[in-house]
Amino acid sequence: MAEAALIIAASETDANLYYATQFWAPDPFIFTQIDGRKFLVMSDLEVDRAKAESKVDEVLSLSKLQADAKKKGAVQPGMVEAVDFLFKERGVGKVRVPGNFPVALADRLRLKGYTLEIAQEPFFPQRMIKQKKEVAAIQETLRLTEEALGSAIGVIHESEIKNGDLWLRGKPLTSELVRKLLHLTLMGSDCLAKETIVSSGVQACDPHCIGSGPLKAHQPIVLDVFPVSLKTRYYADITRTVVKGRPSEKIKKMYQAVREGQEIAFGMLKPGVNGKAVHSAILEHFEKQGFSTGEMGGRMQGFFHGTGHGLGLEIHEPPRVSSNSEILQAGQVVTVEPGLYYLDAGGIRIEDDVLITETGCENLTRFPKILELD
Amino acid sequence: MAEAALIIAASETDANLYYATQFWAPDPFIFTQIDGRKFLVMSDLEVDRAKAESKVDEVLSLSKLQADAKKKGAVQPGMVEAVDFLFKERGVGKVRVPGNFPVALADRLRLKGYTLEIAQEPFFPQRMIKQKKEVAAIQETLRLTEEALGSAIGVIHESEIKNGDLWLRGKPLTSELVRKLLHLTLMGSDCLAKETIVSSGVQACDPHCIGSGPLKAHQPIVLDVFPVSLKTRYYADITRTVVKGRPSEKIKKMYQAVREGQEIAFGMLKPGVNGKAVHSAILEHFEKQGFSTGEMGGRMQGFFHGTGHGLGLEIHEPPRVSSNSEILQAGQVVTVEPGLYYLDAGGIRIEDDVLITETGCENLTRFPKILELD
Repeated sequence: MAEAALIIAASETDANLYYATQFWAPDPFIFTQIDGRKFLVMSDLEVDRAKAESKVDEVLSLSKLQADAKKKGAVQPGMVEAVDFLFKERGVGKVRVPGNFPVALADRLRLKGYTLEIAQEPFFPQRMIKQKKEVAAIQETLRLTEEALGSAIGVIHESEIKNGDLWLRGKPLTSELVRKLLHLTLMGSDCLAKETIVSSGVQACDPHCIGSGPLKAHQPIVLDVFPVSLKTRYYADITRTVVKGRPSEKIKKMYQAVREGQEIAFGMLKPGVNGKAVHSAILEHFEKQGFSTGEMGGRMQGFFHGTGHGLGLEIHEPPRVSSNSEILQAGQVVTVEPGLYYLDAGGIRIEDDVLITETGCENLTRFPKILELD
Repeated sequence: MAEAALIIAASETDANLYYATQFWAPDPFIFTQIDGRKFLVMSDLEVDRAKAESKVDEVLSLSKLQADAKKKGAVQPGMVEAVDFLFKERGVGKVRVPGNFPVALADRLRLKGYTLEIAQEPFFPQRMIKQKKEVAAIQETLRLTEEALGSAIGVIHESEIKNGDLWLRGKPLTSELVRKLLHLTLMGSDCLAKETIVSSGVQACDPHCIGSGPLKAHQPIVLDVFPVSLKTRYYADITRTVVKGRPSEKIKKMYQAVREGQEIAFGMLKPGVNGKAVHSAILEHFEKQGFSTGEMGGRMQGFFHGTGHGLGLEIHEPPRVSSNSEILQAGQVVTVEPGLYYLDAGGIRIEDDVLITETGCENLTRFPKILELD
């Protein structure tokens, strides 16, 4: 019996499928690999575009397979019946699917007698190991992101302080305004950014709060920008924290600790190292500096997210550098983004993207790290 | 035994989850509804933001549930073990999940003794029936889209013809330039557009080809724009086809037939009507006008996509108006987008967004339909 790999998804939201086919489509379609040969099964709408754009061995017509299945007795054949017809023709009995394969389709395949092997993540382990051109694509997105970030921080630098808020040209300088500047600048470079974080004050104590309203003087402003290139489909991810005005001693100490946390990671990251050890070392360093982590006054405070995550066709992809064990390998690109968040001081996060090399790691990020803009 | 509904996904890519929780997050989290009570189970990173932003009854801490599960003997508790602990506490035995629920998680829940009911799509049938504020959100996105489309068509109008291509201010006017103008204008209105189609000539014969290179004079240019509002999360979707120069008689006849195809749909769409009947009526009209559909010279030509699709938190959502049977209901918002594509003439598509009312349908779209820009 032949074995097949199978993905049924929309490549716009399934990076494995895009990785395997290099074909971008908004609606679910069928990808299967049988004995090393890659097939796409496409609707009438997409079949010709798939033939022109995709990187597979053969593009088949869904409507033709469905018509064939109907001749063999299938009533109202759908995607599963088309797959079934294709598999029967080629003697497939066992099917490897990713963990996120839809249970409804899985159950129907099982009813038809197929044995499903649910793959361990990642479905394509080689996707974690970036080829040179993938690293170059990430770097390209990163350079464009740094340019946009430079403009945004420039605007914050230019602003004036009035009653504790930042003002620019007679108006409050808001999270929304700086975010829009970042989004427009990036879109001008064919990069798509969304949910970009520009937050200050107590808002920034919530690492994923995107921020709203006037930016605060003398308090940390977190800018976390993670666009995807519309040309290459690869992401970059960078965070800087700045203060316009005079930061408190606690803010300065937090910033220094986070910088040191990054350096600890840079010193440890290399093939064979456990991401958990890196994450623990940073947590331990923070503790030693007096920055503990946990629920305080009903809110999580300290350093309560992972140190980093893989980066590529997805903004968050394997491996993780976190409290879970995960051995790092050469060719992986991960973020290094320790942070500290306290309600009485604000949030500090600094994030770079690094490539794990044979002997250590290489920081792909160039943007300077400067807390105080004045 | 109590019953639960369960979704484990990232709300950024799972509209059902966003619909149920009104909480936007990039990484998978747990939503469950037990006896009418809605719960979120969130990581340390997101738990406080979820408490502040989500619309559920209770936000629980994933790490706390995992710690509880560990006390009960779970080794390395993950999301499934947290769900298991929660369900056991509340006597849940049967779990309703959406069809796209990940098979890996489904299998682990089944191993723990739960009976899964795989829901028919749509998981939340009420999501198809738009409330007034949802229709208003779609209209708001649509108005902003029409503004941007007006600018883009204005630029095409302004262009000059040189050797069969369009030129503007001494440079070829390309698909890429017009697309960037659309993306930037929309981003300026807090709308995110991607994969926007601006294609002409033979490229436009492929309905999902986004287009590249100089736009062609005397040939149809298809502009298909479908942004999402970053404020409301609701989409709009509009297509216009224009010609700069002199269209052929075939192009004019195709345009007229497609316009009439839309009118056929507008006349038929009302509660209780089968979308399939609407789609068939348009196909039949095209046939009568001499525009047949099928594979010709190795390429799909004619009208080979659906007439329309539901629109809301997703760009493509139920119901479909297509060759599949589907009874329409009041409150649904669907696109009406017949098209004709022939290699010897180019592609024509016109698309409006309509609301099915109690007695018929209301066109939410206002943008004029004019083929010839000169």
